[in-house]
Amino acid sequence: MVRQVPIAGVGMTPFGKSPERTARELFGDAASEAIADAGIEPAAVEEVFYGNFMGEFAEGQGHQGPMAAEAAGVTAPATRFDSACASSGAAVRFGARAVARGDADVALVGGAERMTNLSTADGTSALAAAADALWEVRAGVTFPGAYSLMANRYFHEYGGGREELAHVAVKNHENAVENELAQFQRSIEVEDVLEAPTVCSPFGLYDCSPMSDGASAAVLVSEEYAEEHGLETPVAITGTGQGSDGLALHDRASMVETPAARRAGERAFADAGIEPADVDVAEVHDCFTIAEVLALESLGFYEPGEGLAAAREGETTADGELPVNLSGGLKAKGHPVGATGCAQISEMTKLLRGDHVNSDAVADAEVGVTHNAGGTVASCVVTVLEVMG
Amino acid sequence: MVRQVPIAGVGMTPFGKSPERTARELFGDAASEAIADAGIEPAAVEEVFYGNFMGEFAEGQGHQGPMAAEAAGVTAPATRFDSACASSGAAVRFGARAVARGDADVALVGGAERMTNLSTADGTSALAAAADALWEVRAGVTFPGAYSLMANRYFHEYGGGREELAHVAVKNHENAVENELAQFQRSIEVEDVLEAPTVCSPFGLYDCSPMSDGASAAVLVSEEYAEEHGLETPVAITGTGQGSDGLALHDRASMVETPAARRAGERAFADAGIEPADVDVAEVHDCFTIAEVLALESLGFYEPGEGLAAAREGETTADGELPVNLSGGLKAKGHPVGATGCAQISEMTKLLRGDHVNSDAVADAEVGVTHNAGGTVASCVVTVLEVMG
Repeated sequence: MVRQVPIAGVGMTPFGKSPERTARELFGDAASEAIADAGIEPAAVEEVFYGNFMGEFAEGQGHQGPMAAEAAGVTAPATRFDSACASSGAAVRFGARAVARGDADVALVGGAERMTNLSTADGTSALAAAADALWEVRAGVTFPGAYSLMANRYFHEYGGGREELAHVAVKNHENAVENELAQFQRSIEVEDVLEAPTVCSPFGLYDCSPMSDGASAAVLVSEEYAEEHGLETPVAITGTGQGSDGLALHDRASMVETPAARRAGERAFADAGIEPADVDVAEVHDCFTIAEVLALESLGFYEPGEGLAAAREGETTADGELPVNLSGGLKAKGHPVGATGCAQISEMTKLLRGDHVNSDAVADAEVGVTHNAGGTVASCVVTVLEVMG
Repeated sequence: MVRQVPIAGVGMTPFGKSPERTARELFGDAASEAIADAGIEPAAVEEVFYGNFMGEFAEGQGHQGPMAAEAAGVTAPATRFDSACASSGAAVRFGARAVARGDADVALVGGAERMTNLSTADGTSALAAAADALWEVRAGVTFPGAYSLMANRYFHEYGGGREELAHVAVKNHENAVENELAQFQRSIEVEDVLEAPTVCSPFGLYDCSPMSDGASAAVLVSEEYAEEHGLETPVAITGTGQGSDGLALHDRASMVETPAARRAGERAFADAGIEPADVDVAEVHDCFTIAEVLALESLGFYEPGEGLAAAREGETTADGELPVNLSGGLKAKGHPVGATGCAQISEMTKLLRGDHVNSDAVADAEVGVTHNAGGTVASCVVTVLEVMG
């Protein structure tokens, strides 16, 4: 980036089922926590960048930017970003850009999603609006189906099967056991994954992230503002990248590659001036177990076809070479879609500054990366966070 | 702005009823026209900023950023902005910012909306998602109702009535007569407005903008890029401003003021280094006749309570002191909501560079302003365009 963007504060509601709470209530909680964590007043916020995906379906509420600002107690200009499940990743990116470029000294970024007030069928249908409505959804494709196509093709091209994938879910559940914000604070075994009811072959229940309600927020400030106001900002955003691809999976040259993520990663790493090998810890978008595998490959941590072994071999566990999804990931932390991207930022910030329950696993970490995807990775935002020197 | 942002090309579909055409088809047309008008190749586009409001309801399609990029034939990072009826105004603002700040040399901005494939009732219901779903829509408020409250309160505070408002509609219809892109290319009389069926008192049919399908686009480039590639860019964006307010009308201190527009205008004028008195021509968000009145007051062209006289006295007609909505405005040009903000940019660019059918009315104009509002002006984006010296 032109300049690094210090993270002054982060906040996140517990993820899980709270169907009676509105998105505005959820975001109000997360934003208030982030603002308090930053040690600023709401009035100091100069612009709001907010992600939400399915508010039209869940609450009949579009136009959620002003709603989010109001919930946070600020009157600054506010915009809603929709990049499907990468919505608050996009919000973070635009907020970081605004601060890096001097358009704002204090930005409130985040997102919220209310999902569990819908039935699972209605929720699945709402989520499908992130796929190609014309060419995929009309043919009956929803996201478990789309990602299962990718998983089956992966097995076809590189070998492996359900058991290898299961290790991704087992690892992420294990990471969530002590995380009080996570939806599922319990460990599971490979057999649990293999014996779970089938959702869409090869996926069983534990291969899929859940429906969740929740919100996330962060306060980004300029270095000048942080210094002038004596804010503690041990972690900063040092690079961002975004990539896009066609909405429909069938238009992709390969069903086991996600070029939008590759491009987002390359841009983010170049922006931060780092290489994949410099990364100490990552939060990636494991909406389905196969998605974590593809994410690790697209970011250059593994060669194509080699990512499946990562979890099985223990390379990405808490004490592995590259801990991935120490928060529990979307699988176990939960996946309120519009909140997920900034929740990765919130969790990574805590991991790097030392106040996350799993911080001990990455005590010496200096560089963290988040990977937030929308649809079948038709959108992707990658963010680099670093401990400030 | 830090730097002015040349407008290299603009494009716009005809606005009107084309219920069989998808938003992606519409945007593909507008984007292709803008790209051809700019004299660039699609591959030169470095980022896409796209506005859409009700795609979830009209087509079951969210996540429209990648879809828009694909329709335009580009693979650049693409983001969908939802600021209700100010969605593509927001897209233009973020695109202009990115170019002004050096994040991109070539940005494709625009928006699209498909509306008339829905019934009027379903369309009205979809639009209501821009209001406060919890506190307004549940109580039965839709937008004709919300704006009628503002109009009645205006009459109560300042006097005047339906006949004064009618002049706004008459003027905007008159401006659209020769505009081949406009939905209603015919003039009306004050009696037509007064005798039209009531939609919601004091509004008759002609006080309300129509349901429309359509798309708009513009190519924004850096000055360096324009020079290097020999592009003709007679008009540039020189300032932008955005403002937000609470979603619900009942929370506003006054129902006849739109502070989000006032703040957006002040910021845009300061950004461009101009005063309201410097403005030669304006396109404002006349979703209802009263909305044009409030827009002119909030931008500082008229004192509170004095805007209603503007149209009646002929001050804002094509040969008035400050021509307003020479395109026909939302009333007569049409209002495919997600396309409207960038359509204002497209029309204003043509007005200022001399190739709009109504350019003769503003042959000496150097400064144009667009005002694009969302909801009951809970969102507003104001953009300043100037003839490049």
